[in-house]
Amino acid sequence: MEKLIVIGGGAAGMTAASWARRLKPNMDIIVFEATRMVSHAPCGIPYYTEGLFNDENLFMTYTPEYFKEKRKIDVKINTRVVEVNLKDRNIVIFENLEKKKYEFDYLVLSMGARPKRIDSEGEKILYVHHPADATQIRNELWSSSRIAIIGGGILGIEMAEALQARGKKVILIHRGKYLLNRMLDEDMGKIVTEKVMSEVEVKLNESLVEIKNGGKLIITDKGKYEVDATVVAIGVEPNIDVVKGQIKIGETGAIWVDDHMRTSVPNVYAAGDAAESVNIITKKPDWIPFAPVANKMGFVAGNNIGGKEVVFPGVVGTVITKFKEYIIGKTGLTENEARRYGIKTVSAIVRHKTRARYYPGGKDIIVKLIAEENSMRIIGAQIIGEEEVLGRLNMLAAVVQKGFTAEELFFVETGYVPPVNRVWDVVTLAARKLYTGVGGE
Amino acid sequence: MEKLIVIGGGAAGMTAASWARRLKPNMDIIVFEATRMVSHAPCGIPYYTEGLFNDENLFMTYTPEYFKEKRKIDVKINTRVVEVNLKDRNIVIFENLEKKKYEFDYLVLSMGARPKRIDSEGEKILYVHHPADATQIRNELWSSSRIAIIGGGILGIEMAEALQARGKKVILIHRGKYLLNRMLDEDMGKIVTEKVMSEVEVKLNESLVEIKNGGKLIITDKGKYEVDATVVAIGVEPNIDVVKGQIKIGETGAIWVDDHMRTSVPNVYAAGDAAESVNIITKKPDWIPFAPVANKMGFVAGNNIGGKEVVFPGVVGTVITKFKEYIIGKTGLTENEARRYGIKTVSAIVRHKTRARYYPGGKDIIVKLIAEENSMRIIGAQIIGEEEVLGRLNMLAAVVQKGFTAEELFFVETGYVPPVNRVWDVVTLAARKLYTGVGGE
Ligand SMILES: Cc1cc2nc3c(=O)[nH]c(=O)nc-3n(C[C@H](O)[C@H](O)[C@H](O)COP(=O)(O)OP(=O)(O)OC[C@H]3O[C@@H](n4cnc5c(N)ncnc54)[C@H](O)[C@@H]3O)c2cc1C
Ligand SMILES: Cc1cc2nc3c(=O)[nH]c(=O)nc-3n(C[C@H](O)[C@H](O)[C@H](O)COP(=O)(O)OP(=O)(O)OC[C@H]3O[C@@H](n4cnc5c(N)ncnc54)[C@H](O)[C@@H]3O)c2cc1C
Repeated sequence: MEKLIVIGGGAAGMTAASWARRLKPNMDIIVFEATRMVSHAPCGIPYYTEGLFNDENLFMTYTPEYFKEKRKIDVKINTRVVEVNLKDRNIVIFENLEKKKYEFDYLVLSMGARPKRIDSEGEKILYVHHPADATQIRNELWSSSRIAIIGGGILGIEMAEALQARGKKVILIHRGKYLLNRMLDEDMGKIVTEKVMSEVEVKLNESLVEIKNGGKLIITDKGKYEVDATVVAIGVEPNIDVVKGQIKIGETGAIWVDDHMRTSVPNVYAAGDAAESVNIITKKPDWIPFAPVANKMGFVAGNNIGGKEVVFPGVVGTVITKFKEYIIGKTGLTENEARRYGIKTVSAIVRHKTRARYYPGGKDIIVKLIAEENSMRIIGAQIIGEEEVLGRLNMLAAVVQKGFTAEELFFVETGYVPPVNRVWDVVTLAARKLYTGVGGE
Repeated sequence: MEKLIVIGGGAAGMTAASWARRLKPNMDIIVFEATRMVSHAPCGIPYYTEGLFNDENLFMTYTPEYFKEKRKIDVKINTRVVEVNLKDRNIVIFENLEKKKYEFDYLVLSMGARPKRIDSEGEKILYVHHPADATQIRNELWSSSRIAIIGGGILGIEMAEALQARGKKVILIHRGKYLLNRMLDEDMGKIVTEKVMSEVEVKLNESLVEIKNGGKLIITDKGKYEVDATVVAIGVEPNIDVVKGQIKIGETGAIWVDDHMRTSVPNVYAAGDAAESVNIITKKPDWIPFAPVANKMGFVAGNNIGGKEVVFPGVVGTVITKFKEYIIGKTGLTENEARRYGIKTVSAIVRHKTRARYYPGGKDIIVKLIAEENSMRIIGAQIIGEEEVLGRLNMLAAVVQKGFTAEELFFVETGYVPPVNRVWDVVTLAARKLYTGVGGE
């Protein structure tokens, strides 16, 4: 019987296992997961911290038992893979303090990402990453009143919202000159920054030097802050140590894969945050450690292992986050990124409303579109708004992925009804501004 | 000096005039508008009837004065064009009870649509169509307590919501076996029908025979209803009498145009509800009397008259409406329509939620996708949901317009954050169901 081993029971691993199972009903499938949770969603941690829900089990889409019973997938939780021997085609775990080997025909590497760490150590230095640790971290945070967050990226602002909503005094310390500076261009990022600054204390252009007193004293290049705890949210990196030196690693530091999710080693696949991808616009290696990509990579790996050929088209880099009333999204390249790749761009920003003038409750929405100058193809978009951001973002992801021109985007036959938009949708207006150079309604 | 005349100052006419002006600063532009309103939005009438706003001027995006002053467009309101002589290249109006001729080099026909009428006449038989009549109709309705609506299409259900919200007793009489039966397939239409039936009295499969007592007695093939007033909402037709016999009329009854919005007569353009279009999927004539199409046709006509060549790509038929909490949209072909065109289809329906399991306030959302069987290209979509319908609908309009396959749609890199969707977006799941045959998360 063919043996499939999956390392890491997150989104990518469980999706891969599930699709392999569907296509090969008799395959022997084992998932090793270091924690007690599988098919979990770390994305919920900020909202759990905020206290919007209290049942830890809700982090899991399906339980280990469900996978065992319904999908005949042998899920071994609380079991860390400590060695991978790709030459000998086995992996090693500890079972009752003894090393135990498992052989595989197929292997999926889906160990995810891990938080980047700072040099300082301490009990009150917290990394928000795995749902299995969420309760412990939440307890620490709930018992603190003054909390520093290091890093003004997505996780930083989501945690700032959560902690401020819990009545904590938050100090957000950020190295960049505006928040979300890796996700948004400055024009859009500043709008978010202003909003966040109106709610919590933000220190911009300020770099961490060290953290002392076990997490209670922050020293930056500009000042000192006494707090009760510190959340470090300075980014993530691929969690791939267990295979390092045995497999091709890509430019981004994640495991290199082809468009079938095959690594450089036969019948060894990688998927999710552990795997690298190719950017559809630049055709260059890229790494987009977000859940929808992880799930789809798992789908591709699982199908190919199951014998059904599926090709992953690559990534455009769609990201969405929320701070208070603001939903903030981007897809494709920012102008900053485009510049780095030597792509000449033109862009347009339109601020509009989400409902007809006369319909109550209309909210602001701002769309930035970026096109490649020669072809006028849309290569990126950024949106900030209070409602109906998600669908527009997904629309623009499709547009970027297929290479619509600004003119083609303008002519997309959008729908209109007064309670949910304007007759000229904000996206249509932004496309028109790019395409004709003319703003206004 | 070149002379442009525009007949009808609605969305299409004013957009055409504005773009012609922009490109030809010296052109002599006159718009004739039968009512006192220009660049108006009839779409607001149901919400005005509901009492959500009371300032009639809000129906207009810009006032006649604005066009005169800012855009140097001579807007003649309260001026109906009574004759058009395409051979002699002039139009005729009444000025102080005298006929007066105006000559043109370019003409835009943008008279819009008009409500289909029933045979019976009466003071209490109301047609909801032009914002200029909205106040009068609203007064009639507000002073009535029992109101019949004939027709369970978009306008019928929007008026039902409005009147019920005003505390009126509404009886909605509909010939079809479910509501919105020209917009939705039965599976989706039934969901809307159930919702409407839970709020107002609905009579299905019931045909009007006549209306008596000036609008106060409805006689159908199944019964009699005494009411205080009747709203007739049985559809619209192109308003083109003024040029009939002088110009090519298309199969749909609207004015035939090419993809530049040129009619069969040189330098005579048509745009908006008065004009026919070509369906991008079927390549057959189609008529989509909705505001975004009207505006874009006006844009195309205005640009071409202005000397900048712009091509209208055709229509897919995007429609969106609202009944209470439900936002209901469709784009592309329904299965019913596809069948009529001899297109073999496969379809998938997915019911999902708009937010993560654990995030408060998640709403139901249902997506139906329709693909052409051989190519698996998405040719239609229908959505019913309580939030985030618009953007998804527009996304699917783009998808239909560009001919994405189900697989390509599945691989669109959607964004995910727990407060605004699920990690597998409902659209992604529906695409996956089409593409793999497998449902579930
Ligand atoms: C706090 C937070 C919020 C986020 N919010 C969002 C969001 O809003 N939207 C979004 O799209 N993405 C978000 N992400 C990213 C998203 O969670 C990841 O992209 C996704 O979880 C990746 O799935 P994965 O299966 O590749 O990895 P993971 O979900 O990280 O799963 C990897 C699993 O492998 C296990 N593992 C690792 N090494 C071993 C080993 N040697 N042996 C056994 N098991 C091992 C780990 O315990 C883990 O369970 C967020 C991430 C975090 C941390
Ligand atoms: C009640 C109602 C609700 C609607 N809701 C929506 C919606 O929610 N979403 C949507 O997309 N669409 C909706 N529509 C449709 C939308 O309003 C039309 O598609 C759009 O108005 C068409 O624009 P137009 O410029 O072609 O025609 P119109 O807006 O109808 O303008 C035509 C103008 O021409 C004038 N005119 C006609 N004949 C003459 C003449 N001989 N001389 C001078 N002037 C003349 C008329 O007075 C009118 O002002 C709705 C329509 C109605 C009636």
